[in-house]
Amino acid sequence: MNIQVFKVADVPIEWEEHFVGKEIDPRTQSFLTWESLESVRRNKVGLKGPMATPIGKGHRSLNLTLRKELNLYANVRPCYSLPGYKTKYDGVDLITIRENTEGEYSGLEHQVVRGVVESLKIITRQASLRVAEYAFHYAKTHGRQRVSAIHKANIMQKTDGLFLKCCREVAEKYPDVVYEEVVIDNCCMMLVKNPSLFDVLVMPNLYGDIISDLCAGLIGGLGLTPSCNIGEGGIALAEAVHGSAPDIAGKNLANPTALLLSAVTMLRHLDLHDKADRIQDAVLKTIAEGKYRTGDLGGKSTTTEFTNAICDHL
Amino acid sequence: MNIQVFKVADVPIEWEEHFVGKEIDPRTQSFLTWESLESVRRNKVGLKGPMATPIGKGHRSLNLTLRKELNLYANVRPCYSLPGYKTKYDGVDLITIRENTEGEYSGLEHQVVRGVVESLKIITRQASLRVAEYAFHYAKTHGRQRVSAIHKANIMQKTDGLFLKCCREVAEKYPDVVYEEVVIDNCCMMLVKNPSLFDVLVMPNLYGDIISDLCAGLIGGLGLTPSCNIGEGGIALAEAVHGSAPDIAGKNLANPTALLLSAVTMLRHLDLHDKADRIQDAVLKTIAEGKYRTGDLGGKSTTTEFTNAICDHL
Ligand SMILES: CC(C)[C@H](C(=O)O)[C@@H](O)C(=O)O
Ligand SMILES: CC(C)[C@H](C(=O)O)[C@@H](O)C(=O)O
Repeated sequence: MNIQVFKVADVPIEWEEHFVGKEIDPRTQSFLTWESLESVRRNKVGLKGPMATPIGKGHRSLNLTLRKELNLYANVRPCYSLPGYKTKYDGVDLITIRENTEGEYSGLEHQVVRGVVESLKIITRQASLRVAEYAFHYAKTHGRQRVSAIHKANIMQKTDGLFLKCCREVAEKYPDVVYEEVVIDNCCMMLVKNPSLFDVLVMPNLYGDIISDLCAGLIGGLGLTPSCNIGEGGIALAEAVHGSAPDIAGKNLANPTALLLSAVTMLRHLDLHDKADRIQDAVLKTIAEGKYRTGDLGGKSTTTEFTNAICDHL
Repeated sequence: MNIQVFKVADVPIEWEEHFVGKEIDPRTQSFLTWESLESVRRNKVGLKGPMATPIGKGHRSLNLTLRKELNLYANVRPCYSLPGYKTKYDGVDLITIRENTEGEYSGLEHQVVRGVVESLKIITRQASLRVAEYAFHYAKTHGRQRVSAIHKANIMQKTDGLFLKCCREVAEKYPDVVYEEVVIDNCCMMLVKNPSLFDVLVMPNLYGDIISDLCAGLIGGLGLTPSCNIGEGGIALAEAVHGSAPDIAGKNLANPTALLLSAVTMLRHLDLHDKADRIQDAVLKTIAEGKYRTGDLGGKSTTTEFTNAICDHL
């Protein structure tokens, strides 16, 4: 039924559908099939619904498998107040750009002795430069004024220190973009006090995970925020980041906003800006009107009713 | 001038004053003198003003030195809305209990090869049990209903997994306290959407650093939140966590609220509850009245005027 929106908006896309597999695919070590990865590699773009990782052993999280196999190095999460949907915050307009491949997500952990375990956080110059470059380029091409690098280099001087060093190097190439460095704890305090202090934020993996959820909370939650993963070779995989809400699965109650706004980022990546604008406008208008809203937004509409309302605005 | 408050409130405390040293003390590897540590060890309690770490090489942060040398294993940060001081959030009442000795703060970092660095996050059974025990005991003795363990065990299965395992073990001993586990990113989203979902939160070091600042932001900032470090052998070192604000140092403009409310936690530790109540009430009343407020709270009072107003309420 999200496809319906694209049809009504006349988006010139031929969809290839891939489902999560029933068994672990040995080539991906997860329930994600090799064919689905190949499809993204071939088409360079993809749109991914929320996926729960089935509980079991010997496999990786589906999200992590995607990031790793497709080398999705930057995760871009725009977060803006939706007109008409009131929260405690007005006029939020933030872009979190998260390093998506390393840091605390290395998967390297071991027991040192009984009762003592360690995890390795890995920061590389290559991945840090790459995500910093992406962030500054994004700021420049999207008319953004400021990039804030978020870190804890007062404690992790070597790892976060390297990350900052790379950001500084890249910042030099973008004299028109203001560059600043903010410690993660202070950043969280400032975000809840006054989110307008920030613009584009770039950071290592775990901080990006935390900050992007915090930002989503400011405007109403993950059900409303788009996300797009950028990979080498121009790959863009848009995704709804919220959970798969098994409690309402199949009940026609889910809110498709995050998925549709993520699709909008995918359309922009394909330079289909007019289509992107049309869909984004229709989604925002439907929410602003407030007549049809799904349960998570305090309404009583089904997914179909909400989607139909969006189509009516197209 | 904070001492003035204690005098007016007739607090039966004899103060020993210790200043940050002019040179690095080889016995502490920091500007913190050995004598100041000995003083806390001997007296079992202490009150620490905000301390900036002087820039230089070959020494550690003063805060970290204190935590390490005194084995301050739990950092307790109560965070509650101050009547009369309006923020976006009403009725906030949260207790963050932070493991204070290990995790991402191990200080173990190295370069693997050029351009590749790693930090070690260490979690031990001993420190996790100890802080979990503190959190549940705190909940029980302070009439709190719920303890939430904050983690990222879906990614750091071994380290955060061990932390959770310890929390679960301790939770079993406290059947009257509700126990739940919340992923850090989700916790941040929930905190900004609705802080009343939480009560006591316990977590590894870095998450505690982040969450406690986020919580402080909800009620107005670190200038208003107390903090107390608990060490082995009944040591309690209360501290103002905010920066040392060098821009206003010596100008009689600083807000002593965080320091005074931290002192209140110290008095409670000494079972001087009537004195603690008196000072806390006087501080809260002065802020609620709103006649005397320091610049950070939007007022124009000097520290002296604000402190005098507190003394008038005593
Ligand atoms: C589900 C989880 C592994 C994932 C992450 O930690 O990255 C999620 O929180 C996200 O932000 O995409
Ligand atoms: C100053 C810094 C080292 C410290 C920390 O990271 O613990 C501070 O943020 C705190 O919360 O006490």
